[in-house]
Amino acid sequence: MTFSEIIAKKRDGESLTREEIALFVRGAGDGGLPAEQLSALLMAICIRGMTAEETGRLTQEMLHSGEAWALAATVPEAVDKHSTGGIGDTVSLIFAPLMAAVGVPVAMMAGRGLGHSQGTLDKLEAIPGFRVDWDRSGMIGLLEQCGAAVVAQTDNIAPADRTLYALRDITATVPSLPLIVSSIMSKKLALGAGTLILDVKCGSGAFRKTLAEAVELAEALRSVARSAGVACEALVTEMDQPLGPALGTACEVREAIEILEGRGSAPLREVTLRLAEEALVLCGRDRARARAGLEKALDDGSAAAAWEAFVRAHGGDPDPGLLPRPRRVVDILAEDSGRLTAVDGEDLGRAAVEVGAGRRRLDEEIDDAGGIEVLVRLGDSIEPGRPVARVLLGHRPVDEPAVIAKVRGAFTITETDADLPPLVYGTPEQVG
Amino acid sequence: MTFSEIIAKKRDGESLTREEIALFVRGAGDGGLPAEQLSALLMAICIRGMTAEETGRLTQEMLHSGEAWALAATVPEAVDKHSTGGIGDTVSLIFAPLMAAVGVPVAMMAGRGLGHSQGTLDKLEAIPGFRVDWDRSGMIGLLEQCGAAVVAQTDNIAPADRTLYALRDITATVPSLPLIVSSIMSKKLALGAGTLILDVKCGSGAFRKTLAEAVELAEALRSVARSAGVACEALVTEMDQPLGPALGTACEVREAIEILEGRGSAPLREVTLRLAEEALVLCGRDRARARAGLEKALDDGSAAAAWEAFVRAHGGDPDPGLLPRPRRVVDILAEDSGRLTAVDGEDLGRAAVEVGAGRRRLDEEIDDAGGIEVLVRLGDSIEPGRPVARVLLGHRPVDEPAVIAKVRGAFTITETDADLPPLVYGTPEQVG
Repeated sequence: MTFSEIIAKKRDGESLTREEIALFVRGAGDGGLPAEQLSALLMAICIRGMTAEETGRLTQEMLHSGEAWALAATVPEAVDKHSTGGIGDTVSLIFAPLMAAVGVPVAMMAGRGLGHSQGTLDKLEAIPGFRVDWDRSGMIGLLEQCGAAVVAQTDNIAPADRTLYALRDITATVPSLPLIVSSIMSKKLALGAGTLILDVKCGSGAFRKTLAEAVELAEALRSVARSAGVACEALVTEMDQPLGPALGTACEVREAIEILEGRGSAPLREVTLRLAEEALVLCGRDRARARAGLEKALDDGSAAAAWEAFVRAHGGDPDPGLLPRPRRVVDILAEDSGRLTAVDGEDLGRAAVEVGAGRRRLDEEIDDAGGIEVLVRLGDSIEPGRPVARVLLGHRPVDEPAVIAKVRGAFTITETDADLPPLVYGTPEQVG
Repeated sequence: MTFSEIIAKKRDGESLTREEIALFVRGAGDGGLPAEQLSALLMAICIRGMTAEETGRLTQEMLHSGEAWALAATVPEAVDKHSTGGIGDTVSLIFAPLMAAVGVPVAMMAGRGLGHSQGTLDKLEAIPGFRVDWDRSGMIGLLEQCGAAVVAQTDNIAPADRTLYALRDITATVPSLPLIVSSIMSKKLALGAGTLILDVKCGSGAFRKTLAEAVELAEALRSVARSAGVACEALVTEMDQPLGPALGTACEVREAIEILEGRGSAPLREVTLRLAEEALVLCGRDRARARAGLEKALDDGSAAAAWEAFVRAHGGDPDPGLLPRPRRVVDILAEDSGRLTAVDGEDLGRAAVEVGAGRRRLDEEIDDAGGIEVLVRLGDSIEPGRPVARVLLGHRPVDEPAVIAKVRGAFTITETDADLPPLVYGTPEQVG
């Protein structure tokens, strides 16, 4: 069967066999198939969809296009965590040391900032000396030392995904569920932790805007993980506004430290606790006791101690005084009065990228001093003059009036009340 | 709007505007869009389809990607004829001088053989001296001289179609109706004759196997032509077996001369007459008188004289004795007795290509002496020993047993009777 005939099968809505999918992924990974054919098949998959079996096969083939770390073979109790991407999403920085503090190792491969979102690697690198380039044995060393490891995804992990991801971006096939699921899960399965907790964001600032879409993604991701023998749960959480107040690198690290010291943003603390609680239940712990233990760790200093150990193990200096600070802060004051009924998280994310928290070009350096702080939450009663956000300005030259206008425009204040979304929708079963 | 957003519109089943289609075709023609994006959009069009308006816009944009000859501006009465592709389809060679004989000029751009079919240009070039490379003024000179011109399509005609055609071939998007229609009609409208008669083949040897598919194609082609102001009719004709007995270059020229001299294959004569009759009706002539005039031209020598003028005007020598002849002829004798119930025209076409009537590689030369002659028609009563076909062998080295086996295997002889298809199904309205 020629590859053109395989494309024709999917064009006509048929399912592809394991061998056909293997041919596709191999051709994407080693350049053996022309990009024209890959693009046509991606579009056919995007429109016709894939069965759960096909999605699982695609994930497995993408995983095996590169290195498989099979972490569970060495550290069976290690937990991985993944978020589908949000703004003010500082959870990973808190989750890893918090879980370590209650005795469960956390191992994650993280990425850099993409589009309007900030990357976990970029955030951690705001800490002086913090290293993210570790190989498998380096990661295992980190887990032995401090029970938490966050490392950069290497080029050898799921190389076929890189080819396909770049193609999806230009061929308008990014929103395809099987392509999203296989892209995410191939990398998670390549790390190969035995337990995985998924944070599926839902709302105006998320990739999946409606609850139904978010639940669909949560179920699809979880299903592939479980089929691969991974203990997995997914929580759908709200992304109609930034989760935590900080959007940036150094400022998110500071916010993480606040939470780990028992203070900080209540929504960010709560979502982190819920994800950690689900992860501990997956590990066989009693839910109520798990929750109590996590809260205690945040409040009694043990999570903060775990953070310091985590930073030191990665080569970093945990002194918060060393984190880059803004040179200047511009307060954005409300001009109207009423309720805060909408927040454009993507615009806030873009503003944060502008002032330093991301790269506007691939070769641009992060300015760790820059960022955005959000001071209000949906439903808040706003009076003119109340600060709704702060623009943290660092060293990067920025079009200040444009950034300020973008941040100001991200807040919708109206006279009417609006229904507030819950912070955590729950597992697919709890959403119902 | 980025091109990726245009792809997304078609992916989601929306219609594209004239400007969006223009961007697509321009990018295909000048290489301004990456082949990955073109491929993804081709697949989205193939699955989602296009409205009649979109197909018309696509055709117009493809036509304007190159040179427009606008023939009707100079020779308003000229008629063009197009066949969707069949085997033993010698019609064009007869149609052009026959119409000229009854006073209506015919202008056609023709192509070379593709796949298992034989090309009109290849056939004409079997005539010593026959030239097909004429520009617009050369074509008009031919029309003035002999009332019939058949020229090679130049590289400047619808260049965007060449890019898209090559992509369609590898991306499994060949069968898309709007892509087929715009590819065919952009080239017809680039020549720009005021009248166009379409021969849409239907049956096992055609691209469109069922009557419904053929009618759909006929209507779509005719609709685009009429929207562009061209007087157009389409006849759906049978392609369950080769139309004429000859499959090849020189042998088809000989068959054309037979018909033009009032003899030859009855089905080939009849289909040519029906197409010519419809064309004359499009030109405003009375149907019955048109038919009578055409038959008279075939029988009284005037069509044969028009052929000689046609060949001479193109630089060729009309002496049939100069046409290459086979070095050896192998008769294929029936082994079974019964009715001829199926003929695999594609296999016969491939056998003809093998022995010289086509190119097995792009750089291979045609062997005009080679070809296949079919001696039976569907429904014929066959006795063992009756010759069903002849293999004409020229100078090209061929795997003779394989060709003979392929030709023999193309005829299905059974004990049962089968319904015979009509030779001409008629216009879309006549099919009903």
